[in-house]
Amino acid sequence: MPDTPQHDLPKPVLLVCTTCRAGQPLAEGETPPGRHMLDALEHALAAHPAPPVELRPVTCLSVCRQGCAAAMTQPGKWSYLLGHLSPALAGDLLAYGETYAAHATGAVLPSRRPESLRGAVLGRLPSLAEPSKDNAA
Amino acid sequence: MPDTPQHDLPKPVLLVCTTCRAGQPLAEGETPPGRHMLDALEHALAAHPAPPVELRPVTCLSVCRQGCAAAMTQPGKWSYLLGHLSPALAGDLLAYGETYAAHATGAVLPSRRPESLRGAVLGRLPSLAEPSKDNAA
Repeated sequence: MPDTPQHDLPKPVLLVCTTCRAGQPLAEGETPPGRHMLDALEHALAAHPAPPVELRPVTCLSVCRQGCAAAMTQPGKWSYLLGHLSPALAGDLLAYGETYAAHATGAVLPSRRPESLRGAVLGRLPSLAEPSKDNAA
Repeated sequence: MPDTPQHDLPKPVLLVCTTCRAGQPLAEGETPPGRHMLDALEHALAAHPAPPVELRPVTCLSVCRQGCAAAMTQPGKWSYLLGHLSPALAGDLLAYGETYAAHATGAVLPSRRPESLRGAVLGRLPSLAEPSKDNAA
């Protein structure tokens, strides 16, 4: 992975499932689509003037039937699980990363995501860093 | 919500989407299926001899097309997003909670989940509490 600039403030982390076969059979020795997507993201990030996210490869996000898969997360924000992705969407994922990084809670409206990613959200998890106000319901 | 016993060690949290319509139309004033599922979980938990999880209602887990939805999470473990749920699965969700609570990483094999939940996992997120060993890939 190319070196990415280090910052004092943690960037959003884009977790990328590198073992994802995207529901397709994979010949022995063939590179999984998820790994191709990580490669595409690394290249896009290396060429980005202000890399908005940190990439982190993960072995299986359990989205096997709806992959390629990734997840956007940052402490204190909603985490988003994304499916139906492909290496061709690397640029759009970084554009989403910029919007997510700038959003106070991470709850970026579908209309603010690149069009290719409007149907990509499989689900989201709230930050559990602070006590939940919802807990007393 | 009925009082649940307090422990020094935090239990797994079962986040329950209370606004989920499970992909169905909802008449005005009708209680969403997600809220019914929370009610069923509260009753099952109140009757449980050793409540294995803490329930936490959430407004929208963005699993609208594959709900009812919930998520199991605990600091330091994988978090699991679950879909295709219903109030009838409350007991099975608590059984899964027991297995999850006892598992070191939370990565409970499908065969160790109640049969009704084997196809329920929509995805998972690693704990980001500690630096990831995967980060240097």
